[in-house]
Amino acid sequence: MSERDAVLFANEAFYRAFADRDARAMDAMWSTNAPVTCIHPGWGPIQDREEIVASWAAILADENAPDIQCRDAEAQIYGDVAVVICFETIDDGRLIATNIFCREGPVWKMIHHQAGPTSAASDPHTAETGGALH
Amino acid sequence: MSERDAVLFANEAFYRAFADRDARAMDAMWSTNAPVTCIHPGWGPIQDREEIVASWAAILADENAPDIQCRDAEAQIYGDVAVVICFETIDDGRLIATNIFCREGPVWKMIHHQAGPTSAASDPHTAETGGALH
Repeated sequence: MSERDAVLFANEAFYRAFADRDARAMDAMWSTNAPVTCIHPGWGPIQDREEIVASWAAILADENAPDIQCRDAEAQIYGDVAVVICFETIDDGRLIATNIFCREGPVWKMIHHQAGPTSAASDPHTAETGGALH
Repeated sequence: MSERDAVLFANEAFYRAFADRDARAMDAMWSTNAPVTCIHPGWGPIQDREEIVASWAAILADENAPDIQCRDAEAQIYGDVAVVICFETIDDGRLIATNIFCREGPVWKMIHHQAGPTSAASDPHTAETGGALH
């Protein structure tokens, strides 16, 4: 498996944990060695690992939690850090996410997640831009 | 200057370029060695350096471009990559941003920016959370 494939595999595992409502798998996604941050859409930053895991547990336990699919993930690797940009299709809405991973031995662990709304198409090659604050 | 201070200095320079409408300084912020990505609020990802610089030039040339201030920036360093989380106060609105930098010799250059809306207070220690899609 190439490095890039390994990063995209970790990104897929993150969304699989979300889609499966698997709080334990979500917990296991996050680095235990490095500082972590999570910015849910519309929220402020959560900068404590336990609080991040608890926030996901609450979201995944909510019976009204939306379905989610990851689309068009693209990874860039900068040494032991990787950045994945992808779209999140949530019910009828669409978000765009920055997911950052760090290498821990043979696997990549999440150190940061930010998702926010986008009006762009899910295929970045046909994405519309414009009409934003900046 | 500590590593963290150097990262926060680069982050400040990014917002100074924005506030000063200085397209040349904004251009100089972005790495020329590493892959770069920019997600303006509501937009899709821009993954080409020239397009990123052009998007900023258009934004900064717009006489209706909002004023911006960076608040409560916090940096984490992972080897040669640094992640800054901060709030952006734009006119009456508030955004939250992930800014990623990589070390290039003595300076830190931007490799990624995503900003999106937040309902949280600008001080993360008093930030409200909740009411989001996930």
